[in-house]
Amino acid sequence: MKNYVLTPGPVPVPEFVMLEMAKPIIHHRTSEFEEIFYKATLGLKKVFMTNEEVLILASSGTGAMDAAVSNTLSKGDSALVVNGGKFGERWAKICNAYGVNVIELKVEWGKAVKVKDIEKALDDNKEIKAILIQASETSTGVEHPIEEISKITKNRDDVLLVVDGITAVGAFPVEFDKWGIDILIGGSQKAFMLPPGLAFISLSQKAWNFYEKSDLPKFYLDLKQAYKNSLKKTSPWTPAVNLVMGLNAVLEYFDKLGLDNLFKRHTVMSEATIKGFESIGLENFAPGCSSTALSVIKSPEHINAGEIIKGLKNKYGMIVAGGQDQAKGKIFRITHMGYVDKGDMISVIAGVENILQELKYDFTPGLGVSTASNILDQL
Amino acid sequence: MKNYVLTPGPVPVPEFVMLEMAKPIIHHRTSEFEEIFYKATLGLKKVFMTNEEVLILASSGTGAMDAAVSNTLSKGDSALVVNGGKFGERWAKICNAYGVNVIELKVEWGKAVKVKDIEKALDDNKEIKAILIQASETSTGVEHPIEEISKITKNRDDVLLVVDGITAVGAFPVEFDKWGIDILIGGSQKAFMLPPGLAFISLSQKAWNFYEKSDLPKFYLDLKQAYKNSLKKTSPWTPAVNLVMGLNAVLEYFDKLGLDNLFKRHTVMSEATIKGFESIGLENFAPGCSSTALSVIKSPEHINAGEIIKGLKNKYGMIVAGGQDQAKGKIFRITHMGYVDKGDMISVIAGVENILQELKYDFTPGLGVSTASNILDQL
Repeated sequence: MKNYVLTPGPVPVPEFVMLEMAKPIIHHRTSEFEEIFYKATLGLKKVFMTNEEVLILASSGTGAMDAAVSNTLSKGDSALVVNGGKFGERWAKICNAYGVNVIELKVEWGKAVKVKDIEKALDDNKEIKAILIQASETSTGVEHPIEEISKITKNRDDVLLVVDGITAVGAFPVEFDKWGIDILIGGSQKAFMLPPGLAFISLSQKAWNFYEKSDLPKFYLDLKQAYKNSLKKTSPWTPAVNLVMGLNAVLEYFDKLGLDNLFKRHTVMSEATIKGFESIGLENFAPGCSSTALSVIKSPEHINAGEIIKGLKNKYGMIVAGGQDQAKGKIFRITHMGYVDKGDMISVIAGVENILQELKYDFTPGLGVSTASNILDQL
Repeated sequence: MKNYVLTPGPVPVPEFVMLEMAKPIIHHRTSEFEEIFYKATLGLKKVFMTNEEVLILASSGTGAMDAAVSNTLSKGDSALVVNGGKFGERWAKICNAYGVNVIELKVEWGKAVKVKDIEKALDDNKEIKAILIQASETSTGVEHPIEEISKITKNRDDVLLVVDGITAVGAFPVEFDKWGIDILIGGSQKAFMLPPGLAFISLSQKAWNFYEKSDLPKFYLDLKQAYKNSLKKTSPWTPAVNLVMGLNAVLEYFDKLGLDNLFKRHTVMSEATIKGFESIGLENFAPGCSSTALSVIKSPEHINAGEIIKGLKNKYGMIVAGGQDQAKGKIFRITHMGYVDKGDMISVIAGVENILQELKYDFTPGLGVSTASNILDQL
């Protein structure tokens, strides 16, 4: 059976990128590769919307999250962790590993953090050195209001805004320079439509000032080393050569498409998917704050989402993600990132409709698909 | 011009591996990928010659070197660093980053460490908790006597033997269990003939005991997390999916070839290259202790190795590595790892001969090639 990977990372990789990565290896300490590496960093700056260096790490996104903490904070520092899902939780675990004191701002799963709650936490805890947050929380589909939060931190020298944009950068605008973000992280296997294995990270001057004061030990993930080498069109340790070659191909594609069109693809697919499912009575798990990078849909009452997920896999070879922890059995998650297009969104809705009919769920068959396809006409 | 990558990492990747990695992405949290991941760890155990888990990290080899230190030692601990080249130096840098006290055993470049010097260092410094060493020092082509050193540490509970086998594992036998090595590291872009982006690491029970006492912070490179997940056929963070798919293809190829034959390929190519160059008066940089993973050859007196390296690149598209630091301009380095074969060895010797003729070096043209090709008949 043909497989359709529709998870919010890893995502389908375009054929032209797979073939680019299948090209013969290039030695990384050659001018030929340095030009490829340099071109990739230039392309990344556009997507990160920054003039700062964007560093390319040979790691998964978690490596860059680790680096964000270990390169800027010190043992005993306090960080405000916005925890509204599995990746918010991960910030807390990283802080714990490094002896950074966690002040947790719990957010109900499926809800965005309230800016005033962040303001209050900062007021109540003057010792906070950094806000650790997701632009888009992959486990719930929530987009947090980064632009609004950045207004609080932009003019404060004493607090960093550290944004895990792994499921955001490339999917929708996260304006590093304009908003005044201090650290922003991206990952290859998300909107960059590559296999996993690369993480991207950019730091503001304020973040580099924190670097100088940080006393946490680091070596492989030492961002100053990466920065110094990036200026010389290379990386301190052996880079993941073929993934960087693929990255360049993706960034060229982004350039041809235009960033606005790239973002629009996610917006339209998101709207179509959510409205399509809503038309047959399935709710958006993150109403009013859903990220356009993925859609998180609640299964109907009395139907375990696991049955929908299993049905999609067995009948259609479609792989969508389920819920974790408290959301297990309640939701399914569909990517709009990666090499997916209108047909993928239509077919997954049709697949869910078919399974819901089998499960005797009461709805108008075909309505989800037709609702979505009308919206997808915008692409 | 066709390019021939003949550097000691990255190395040429076989076509069947490139095509395997160009296959559509698989989601990493599926039974399909878990079987691939599990099969890869079983294959790695054979090459590492161990019954311990071999952990697969999404990082370059340096990430695993960092992990070896940060997962077993504590701040203020002392480590004996065998420094006979660039990668020995790196051990010291990692220790410095983590506040581990470095007791350095300097070894002349091109020479192997003497076992009695290690014994003496251990006698003189009872506080030493670990010996950090390379099985094969890529910058000099030296193989250090790991088996002999392991006899010192095997029956001591208080000292770990930590071996960077990045340019060794898969090239020649490094017998983890039999010798009693405590930590052994491999890298994808070396004898495993993959692109860079994966590191492999195995720990003895003694090393895990050290883990429990280590107070150095770690998160992304926390090996206990990797270990726990490896038992469940997965990794704690998103693995580099396509590289793991490629790894499996390589390990299947190793299985068909047989480990003895794999090692023999390196031995014969090494002997042929060294004797070939010696027959025209070019010396082995590491006589009596040369690793079979690569050959490091000294350029003739009055000829800068840079001219040979540049000539190979410009005339033949052949990329070989030069010397670093004190060896710059004095040596060139040729891989025997990766998807290289008899023809590659013959042609690089012929290329060097051609350039030496242009440089008016006095020798019998063709002698290097014929000497090497006779030895290569063993393959």
